[in-house]
Amino acid sequence: MKNKDTLEILNELMELSSFMKKLIIRPTETNSEINISRLQMQTLSVLYKFNSINMTNLAKQLMVTKQQATGIVNNLVKKGYVSRAVNPENRKEILLNNTESGEEMIKMVRSHMTDRLYKYFDILSPEDKIKVLEASKAINEVVKKIEPKPLT
Amino acid sequence: MKNKDTLEILNELMELSSFMKKLIIRPTETNSEINISRLQMQTLSVLYKFNSINMTNLAKQLMVTKQQATGIVNNLVKKGYVSRAVNPENRKEILLNNTESGEEMIKMVRSHMTDRLYKYFDILSPEDKIKVLEASKAINEVVKKIEPKPLT
Repeated sequence: MKNKDTLEILNELMELSSFMKKLIIRPTETNSEINISRLQMQTLSVLYKFNSINMTNLAKQLMVTKQQATGIVNNLVKKGYVSRAVNPENRKEILLNNTESGEEMIKMVRSHMTDRLYKYFDILSPEDKIKVLEASKAINEVVKKIEPKPLT
Repeated sequence: MKNKDTLEILNELMELSSFMKKLIIRPTETNSEINISRLQMQTLSVLYKFNSINMTNLAKQLMVTKQQATGIVNNLVKKGYVSRAVNPENRKEILLNNTESGEEMIKMVRSHMTDRLYKYFDILSPEDKIKVLEASKAINEVVKKIEPKPLT
């Protein structure tokens, strides 16, 4: 028997995800300048956020297996967007970083999204802006506690 | 010159969208039982929510042009998921509805998503559950005010 309160959250989140798909996710994917897959893009995003990260943690962040993460990274290395380097503090560990062109790619995508979304959100009243901002922050804060696991 | 507060919202929303992609959107798409495109799925979702809708309003909801919406609906009609019928109250208008199998499809996808997400959200503390619920509701409420337009 499932908890009613958890199901209620899921309903609201599905509603929210449909808005996100329309306004945020789809526009990025239909941009012909961006010739990399969604998981590749998310990888660049994770590397942008964490700067240096090893494969195990990248896989966790992406919620994929380590093997899948390795495949994604191999492709990004081939494309020149990601580099691997030995961790100077622990020479057994390999750290992943965005290259300069990886960094440019992720910045281009973000500014493209910003330009596109700006008009929708700028028209909101100051009260509504605060509501959306506080609410997004609250969700982002809570979901950090959800341990990312590969989706099976 | 862009407003700083609007840009701040966009940053939080992009962060949120990355979580949504990982946890909500990707799992649906990698489910091999679901052999329809994301926009087709969104169409079934809109029809599920609004019950009967005409092409103009469907296009608005999907944020695509009327021409694109027509193409999507044609495909769904072929697959037997959507039916067209004359509006009995205005015989010049055609209304779109999910067929029984369209309805089954959308319910299958939703229950699949629910099963998958349940474990992540059920472990949250009651306080965090309330936070996520209230915050999702707040965003859903505000974004309803954003007039959907085709994305160009």
